[in-house]
Amino acid sequence: MTAVECEGRIVIVDTGLMFPTAEMLGIDLVLPDFSSLRERSDDIEAIVLTHGHEDHVGALPYVLREIGIPPVIYGGLLTIGMVRSKLDEHKLRDVPLQELPAGEVMRAGPFEIELVHMAHSIPDARAVALTTDAGTVLVTGDYKFDQTPVDGIPADVSRLAELGRSGVLCLCGDSTNADRPGVAPSESSVGPALLEVFSRCTGRIVVTSFASNVHRVQQVIDAAANLDRRVALVGRSMRKNFNIASNLGMASAPGGLFISPKEIEDFPDEKVVVISTGSQGEPLSALRRMAHRDHPDVELHSGDTVIFSATPIPGNERSVNETIDRIFQIGAQVVTAADAPIHASGHGWQEELKLMLNLTKPDYVFPFHGDHKRLKLHADLAESVGIDRTRIFTGRNGLALDVDGSGARFTADVHASMIFVDGVSVGEPDEFALRDRRKLSDDGVFIVVATISSDDGSQVADPEVIFRGVPFAEDADGLRDELRGVVEDTLADAAEEQVREISLLQQDLHDDIAEFVYEKLRRRPLVLPVVVEV
Amino acid sequence: MTAVECEGRIVIVDTGLMFPTAEMLGIDLVLPDFSSLRERSDDIEAIVLTHGHEDHVGALPYVLREIGIPPVIYGGLLTIGMVRSKLDEHKLRDVPLQELPAGEVMRAGPFEIELVHMAHSIPDARAVALTTDAGTVLVTGDYKFDQTPVDGIPADVSRLAELGRSGVLCLCGDSTNADRPGVAPSESSVGPALLEVFSRCTGRIVVTSFASNVHRVQQVIDAAANLDRRVALVGRSMRKNFNIASNLGMASAPGGLFISPKEIEDFPDEKVVVISTGSQGEPLSALRRMAHRDHPDVELHSGDTVIFSATPIPGNERSVNETIDRIFQIGAQVVTAADAPIHASGHGWQEELKLMLNLTKPDYVFPFHGDHKRLKLHADLAESVGIDRTRIFTGRNGLALDVDGSGARFTADVHASMIFVDGVSVGEPDEFALRDRRKLSDDGVFIVVATISSDDGSQVADPEVIFRGVPFAEDADGLRDELRGVVEDTLADAAEEQVREISLLQQDLHDDIAEFVYEKLRRRPLVLPVVVEV
Repeated sequence: MTAVECEGRIVIVDTGLMFPTAEMLGIDLVLPDFSSLRERSDDIEAIVLTHGHEDHVGALPYVLREIGIPPVIYGGLLTIGMVRSKLDEHKLRDVPLQELPAGEVMRAGPFEIELVHMAHSIPDARAVALTTDAGTVLVTGDYKFDQTPVDGIPADVSRLAELGRSGVLCLCGDSTNADRPGVAPSESSVGPALLEVFSRCTGRIVVTSFASNVHRVQQVIDAAANLDRRVALVGRSMRKNFNIASNLGMASAPGGLFISPKEIEDFPDEKVVVISTGSQGEPLSALRRMAHRDHPDVELHSGDTVIFSATPIPGNERSVNETIDRIFQIGAQVVTAADAPIHASGHGWQEELKLMLNLTKPDYVFPFHGDHKRLKLHADLAESVGIDRTRIFTGRNGLALDVDGSGARFTADVHASMIFVDGVSVGEPDEFALRDRRKLSDDGVFIVVATISSDDGSQVADPEVIFRGVPFAEDADGLRDELRGVVEDTLADAAEEQVREISLLQQDLHDDIAEFVYEKLRRRPLVLPVVVEV
Repeated sequence: MTAVECEGRIVIVDTGLMFPTAEMLGIDLVLPDFSSLRERSDDIEAIVLTHGHEDHVGALPYVLREIGIPPVIYGGLLTIGMVRSKLDEHKLRDVPLQELPAGEVMRAGPFEIELVHMAHSIPDARAVALTTDAGTVLVTGDYKFDQTPVDGIPADVSRLAELGRSGVLCLCGDSTNADRPGVAPSESSVGPALLEVFSRCTGRIVVTSFASNVHRVQQVIDAAANLDRRVALVGRSMRKNFNIASNLGMASAPGGLFISPKEIEDFPDEKVVVISTGSQGEPLSALRRMAHRDHPDVELHSGDTVIFSATPIPGNERSVNETIDRIFQIGAQVVTAADAPIHASGHGWQEELKLMLNLTKPDYVFPFHGDHKRLKLHADLAESVGIDRTRIFTGRNGLALDVDGSGARFTADVHASMIFVDGVSVGEPDEFALRDRRKLSDDGVFIVVATISSDDGSQVADPEVIFRGVPFAEDADGLRDELRGVVEDTLADAAEEQVREISLLQQDLHDDIAEFVYEKLRRRPLVLPVVVEV
């Protein structure tokens, strides 16, 4: 999420989300913190979306709910199509979504908004040029300079060059592959490689890839048709995205090529290609379920070949490897991008980042969309093409870059951490709740309930003891008895010392139980004492 | 852990452990399930350890406690030294640990036991040849055919060839790198690469590697001495392993080279090399603490170079990447094995696995030590050197391979899952406890306590409500009041329906609270109702 402000008016570029890391226990989604924009919703002229990937549009429903609906939301045709479907699912209707064709200029307050066609791993990716009296800010979105894209329309280098000649004030550039020397392979190189692998397969073929990579899915379909195999799309997002793209005329298949997942078993193995979600080993994805022999329609077996036309996103290596190993265990073959050139990244490599810098000749460079390592490497690339270090700004979320006639500098540091989505609850990271969840998941929970008389503090019922998430408690009854003994001792001590304050009594119970459990089990669970006075 | 049995007598080769995966919430260690050996402890002639890595010796203390102490435990010199230190920590003394020099033959029941010197990423790695009247079983341990190892003693190919000429009945071979074509680089190629990288560093150097890789640590020390830099060993296992190796004469440093971690700041940056634990991004390791600016002795800063002389073990990518990115954020440089040839695997690649097969010419091949993918690829390699597929057995834990004059076949399937260590508790995976931990970590816990009269079931105290691990409960008091209302409604309904059985009442409370929480928060936490009768 990038906000560009001029004369007190704002255009927002992209509203993406992150998927939670392993430490964010139980959290469903991570959103950008847009609280600083909440009071300024009247100042927002437009939201512009570069492309339809979740890390660029996924937070939109939350943003619209929290800061209101802006006058207009622009994007490429497929982007708008995918976003409309997403907003429908969130029951957000009457949102002013509008396709802005590349090259057309729309005015919004002090801004001229123009989209520039780029290539990426989803059709209709765009860079955003925002021109004001102060100059042009160019936000690249995710891009590569694919010279032979599948749809035949390479990134619009002429328009980028024109913008560069007119003068780009600031370039906000994608840094994802700033660590990779050279040029990314073309998307259209993947098709022949897939066909080559397919032609060696004698049994059933299962290809997994990102559902939003329409051109990849198209190439799989073409290779299947070429070899006279039928195609089944498996996984909800695979079918949904193909339908959207197909309705927009961006994807197609010969009539009769498709079969439903239920029909797969009706065709000979050598006549079928399954295109499946799950390239990242996602827990509930179709491929993961196949690998665990738990898919209703596809039962993998020896002779099948599973082709990973994708690489693991950093952090997903373990789940991808586990999925692959399960498939080997079943006896099926696995082909990954390490075995054949069946994947191409959608993000430009170093030479492409340099080309972008040389085309646009920005006064200031603002590397974004990458971890600290890649921002730094992108900054190094900018320096290597002759941009002065003082004109390169590697920031972080929340740091505002102020550019005017006299130069550029980081100024305001707006509050911009993360927002967690947990079920239907949305809020700032709650360290206490996450710490409790960590404790609960590591060591479980012990609950003791003591019931005492409000007259004299004496026990009026046996203590209740419950523990959960404590493995190997084979002698659970014995442990429970011991814990009851601890509670009774604590209460007896408290009575002797005339402790009658409930909170103090609970503190004593907590400390004594925690100490006992640590001595006995070497664990530090969450201990929750409850004292009931009757 | 491999058990070789002949005439009812048993030799155990290695007793390793696994580190828990992310799904094994709160579990500390994973041991092999040796329950099938428990009743047979009198039949065990010896335990033989191939080398000192945790995945080969780590379960030894648990094995000794569970199945008793065998007549003798053999291993190479460093292996025995490291194991003795480990058993000391577990307060296991008087264990019959004995160095068995490579080439010497010891008799144990029907077995002749011989160790064959191999190269690996720890000194004193050995293959184990167990010869009985039935023939020789060769267990390779982890190995590579490094022709120029740092200690100058390559794997004993002559002895392997002799064993092959005499006839190897079964080869149990390491499969770790069965997917890598070619030959692994020599450990001694790492030293010059490290020196080359060091010589380009103008500030402080921090090298991280496995503490047990004594030859690697030695090469770092040599490079530091070469450039007139002092060396500090940081991290407990780094110091411990160096001391053991140094006492055995396997590692050394010029007098005065070492400085203590506390002295690091007393020396100019360009005069210091820190050798640190944490190459896998382990949470409490020295390097991870440095990356989080939380190490008592080393404060990383711009100008420092951190060198990863190790690659991430599969599954550790995320924590390693996170550590690297934190270091970039601090402004220090990072050099990994992707940037310079500063790491060499300790496991042989495909050509080495084939060489092992050709040297030993086994009647039967039993690929082990690898996931399903690598076992399968190792089997393919065996076939490629001319071994008949029917003589290659890829099994799994617990499956016994029975070999006799008439052939080989999988027979008994002994119970051999995993054993979890959780604090001081040891037991079989407890699905219930882990499921509870998963629930607790995802959605937290809700506890309600209802106190009712044993006379008529009426409430005698207000319900108590506690929830933990529930984020964003900003209106916690309101939520608590609502939950109390649910409890009171449930009790009122129960009273009306004359439900007096405590367990039924608890079930009602559970269901009503769970439903309320799901409707309100879309979460399914652990709900624990307690009914106290007074």
